[in-house]
Amino acid sequence: MALRSGRALARLLRQGLGTASPAELPALRQLQQRAGVATGPFGGTGARTAAGGAARAPWLVAVAVGLSAGLGAQLVSARGSEPAECKAADKPKAGLKEYDKEEVAKHRTKETGIWVTYKDGVYDVSKFVEQHPGGAARLMLAAGGPIDSFWAMYQQHNTAQVRGILAEYQIGRLKGGAAAAPKPADPYAHEPERLPALIVRSQKPMNSETPMELLTAALVTPNDLFYVRNHLPVPVVNPDTYRLKIEGEGVRAVELSLEDLKTKFKRHSITATLQCTGNRRQEYNTSGRPVKGLEWDGGSISTAVWTGVRLRDVLRAAGLEEDEPLVQHIQFEGLDTDMAETVYGASIEVDKAMDPAGDVLLAFEMNGQALPRDHGYPLRVVVPGVAGCRSVKWVGKIIASAEESTSFWQQKDYKSFGPNVDWDNVDWSSAPAIQAMPVTSQICEPAAGTQVDDDEVTLKGYAWSGSGQGIIRVDVSADGGKTWHQAELKKVPQKRGRGWAWALWEATLPVPKGHKGPLELVCKATDESYNTQPESAAPIWNLRGVNCNSWHRVLVDVQ
Amino acid sequence: MALRSGRALARLLRQGLGTASPAELPALRQLQQRAGVATGPFGGTGARTAAGGAARAPWLVAVAVGLSAGLGAQLVSARGSEPAECKAADKPKAGLKEYDKEEVAKHRTKETGIWVTYKDGVYDVSKFVEQHPGGAARLMLAAGGPIDSFWAMYQQHNTAQVRGILAEYQIGRLKGGAAAAPKPADPYAHEPERLPALIVRSQKPMNSETPMELLTAALVTPNDLFYVRNHLPVPVVNPDTYRLKIEGEGVRAVELSLEDLKTKFKRHSITATLQCTGNRRQEYNTSGRPVKGLEWDGGSISTAVWTGVRLRDVLRAAGLEEDEPLVQHIQFEGLDTDMAETVYGASIEVDKAMDPAGDVLLAFEMNGQALPRDHGYPLRVVVPGVAGCRSVKWVGKIIASAEESTSFWQQKDYKSFGPNVDWDNVDWSSAPAIQAMPVTSQICEPAAGTQVDDDEVTLKGYAWSGSGQGIIRVDVSADGGKTWHQAELKKVPQKRGRGWAWALWEATLPVPKGHKGPLELVCKATDESYNTQPESAAPIWNLRGVNCNSWHRVLVDVQ
Repeated sequence: MALRSGRALARLLRQGLGTASPAELPALRQLQQRAGVATGPFGGTGARTAAGGAARAPWLVAVAVGLSAGLGAQLVSARGSEPAECKAADKPKAGLKEYDKEEVAKHRTKETGIWVTYKDGVYDVSKFVEQHPGGAARLMLAAGGPIDSFWAMYQQHNTAQVRGILAEYQIGRLKGGAAAAPKPADPYAHEPERLPALIVRSQKPMNSETPMELLTAALVTPNDLFYVRNHLPVPVVNPDTYRLKIEGEGVRAVELSLEDLKTKFKRHSITATLQCTGNRRQEYNTSGRPVKGLEWDGGSISTAVWTGVRLRDVLRAAGLEEDEPLVQHIQFEGLDTDMAETVYGASIEVDKAMDPAGDVLLAFEMNGQALPRDHGYPLRVVVPGVAGCRSVKWVGKIIASAEESTSFWQQKDYKSFGPNVDWDNVDWSSAPAIQAMPVTSQICEPAAGTQVDDDEVTLKGYAWSGSGQGIIRVDVSADGGKTWHQAELKKVPQKRGRGWAWALWEATLPVPKGHKGPLELVCKATDESYNTQPESAAPIWNLRGVNCNSWHRVLVDVQ
Repeated sequence: MALRSGRALARLLRQGLGTASPAELPALRQLQQRAGVATGPFGGTGARTAAGGAARAPWLVAVAVGLSAGLGAQLVSARGSEPAECKAADKPKAGLKEYDKEEVAKHRTKETGIWVTYKDGVYDVSKFVEQHPGGAARLMLAAGGPIDSFWAMYQQHNTAQVRGILAEYQIGRLKGGAAAAPKPADPYAHEPERLPALIVRSQKPMNSETPMELLTAALVTPNDLFYVRNHLPVPVVNPDTYRLKIEGEGVRAVELSLEDLKTKFKRHSITATLQCTGNRRQEYNTSGRPVKGLEWDGGSISTAVWTGVRLRDVLRAAGLEEDEPLVQHIQFEGLDTDMAETVYGASIEVDKAMDPAGDVLLAFEMNGQALPRDHGYPLRVVVPGVAGCRSVKWVGKIIASAEESTSFWQQKDYKSFGPNVDWDNVDWSSAPAIQAMPVTSQICEPAAGTQVDDDEVTLKGYAWSGSGQGIIRVDVSADGGKTWHQAELKKVPQKRGRGWAWALWEATLPVPKGHKGPLELVCKATDESYNTQPESAAPIWNLRGVNCNSWHRVLVDVQ
């Protein structure tokens, strides 16, 4: 039986040992012990993770937003120890009362109780509404009717775990049974084709990361290997009828065609790295305290040369003055929507938008080609130095405003709190929306579990920091951080304060003399402001699992 | 006998137990053990520090630039274990050959050997020149003659430790003895008066920090309590004849009087914190690996409201265009000089200088009053968000240039390297000059050694980050960092990206139930870019001991 590569072994380690060959087991178990990974009856870190978090806020822990099907399939119910499959909502309990659609439709308020249907089950979710991670308002859109279409849109619900939670609220069955249940159309029927090389964390919406081995291959990531982080289905946009709308305070309402943008403004190109705030989220989970969100490894980061026009120039052309007191934020709305016409939205500070050195673009090209559909065709915002979620794709509207975007993604999803703040005591308004991100780095090669020689080991990786603070140094260690060496950096030359692109790095380190067995490789980066990475994830743990930037550690095996 | 306050006990702890009362000793020894402080025959951490570093680069370790007299007095020679006093240069060895001044003057090159005199001793320093921390060039200014005047200027040399090093190079005595030795004038004869409350780390030049108890008293530090970091004697400047000269590439040579500056340009005020790059340097020493430099505690940081004109406006008026390709840096020269007419100099990137949101000022007022002499009267640069050393005081000349300042302070003194880089393998050109500084925070109260009640403890402190990244959160812990709480912040309202002023904070934490004896209090801050502080000092150790921003820890004693 063939043994797997180091990378495949590492994946296996994360997913549990169920499919390891007998020859692979000893090496894996050893790595597992060193990494502190516990295996339970349902196998793997995913199981331990969800169960471990149950003590605090069981319902919420279960709604692992966007949890990938691959990792989520074996999750246990957060409330008990039985597998979620035993009480999944798609196998409704027998002997329950029957209700017709009209009766369900009467339950849309606190007073009447809030009911929904899913397939042919009827559920009273009154007690859950306020705890819905996507917000009570969004769940209320489905009140008195089927949630099937919503779940078809937000497919992160489609895990045994989430269905298990819903099952606990079941009060009856829909009269007419399965035949009466709606058959929602697939809002994801028009997704673009993608390379199978991408590592999918969620299929619908598409969330996939660039394979680690490819990240360090070039300073600029090829378009079809650039990580994809979509929140909704990819919209189908006709470039001929497309109009960018500009409105709000201090500007004239303007509509611009693609042709207008391409011909009436000066073109600019910048090389900028985009990164999801959830990049490296997995490490919070393996640090022992689970978080909610897509289980990103370190591959939700990529770099491209973006070409377009300056947002500043377009806003100025629409009449926005410097220091206009009525305008503090520039809001963006995407053309991607759900069935309730909720559009993806985000905003940035007007100072960043208007700063000539801020380099915020309305981009129509990515690495010299028209934007791919997955990356915002025909036009997207690129806010360099800032969390990827503010670089709104398929941008349809720009609003100059005194206020931030009111979207869920601005007000709740992308915020961070102290390690003591959890779902039961969070005050969302107490933290600012994430804009610039902290300094981070990642060992891309070798992968965890790789067998290395006992003389030296070569490491490759990336490092990046927000706010345009370029990387000035990457320190690497082959003894868990006791002694350090400097990696060699490869960078696109960029000015101080405008270091939007990552640095790639490489280092060959001596293996400590006589060392055999597990060896911890570590990297940490320093940026122009001499900010550096914290040693471990626990003190920066936060309930949404964002901004994971502790030292990156990889356990290899010395032969 | 009266027992000292917690703060006084803490100072005693740092300095050694020689003057502790018998009643104080048990509490101090306990704290000392917990803090890992060793006491040797010469008492205190200073002694251990210098000796501990001897293995690597004995000569260089000994030249502790600007080491405060108070802590340095008992330092041992870095080369051996005897106290430096035994071979101090001011007690020249008997029986050595006599040379007259003319003979000494012939030794000014590598070929002839490089000789200097100090008092009536003659020294061949040929082998030391290249290792001089202040640079070979500066030492060569004294070649063939007396160094007495130089040492009167750079009084950090006047420690037993440095004199002990010089003594090893003695080859003879000056003919005529003490009478023939120069009597240098005191270049520090015209220093301003200072408050005795300031904690002096070096008398000449004046380097003193604000007492910890006063730092958190107000968001703005009173002028006479603002920390003082001078590199040379305070110049005496006549405001009537004072002229600011502007020259270099892309500008017309211009001279501006104070009147010109005050009447021809728009005035701006900003509240900005300045901090020495060496702030908290002591913590590297107590972490077990000594560094060179003034032994700053956490008080070389203060905040003021600065009023003046924008550097940008003055440069524009002198003809500098935006994006002038010949100009990449703006250099500043102070009016403070040594006897060789070396002026203090520094530079910043032109992008920071010209950015309207960069808020770089030429300031003539500090907290509504004319600048005090110690803070740059009549005019200084204020570069908010950047290390204090770039905010050049007594600024006399501004040079627009393609190059950085060539000053020692730009090219060498204020740089940082990896923890593996030491004086024997440093490549000064491999790191950029420090500009923006990383996020930091400090517990100002209670002081180390304070006796606290067993129910709760109140902490006060400051937090600050460079690059205008305002502080959004301070996490505090009363159990060494296992569990966290959020402190309450007091801040001057400032825009995102222009958060130039510190946050003051306060928190009352429960003492862990049943805990008696030493208790570790910890703080760590998070800034707008979600950068946070590393846990410990060792992984960010650097040979110059700058940018110490690890978690601040204070050991108190629960009654």
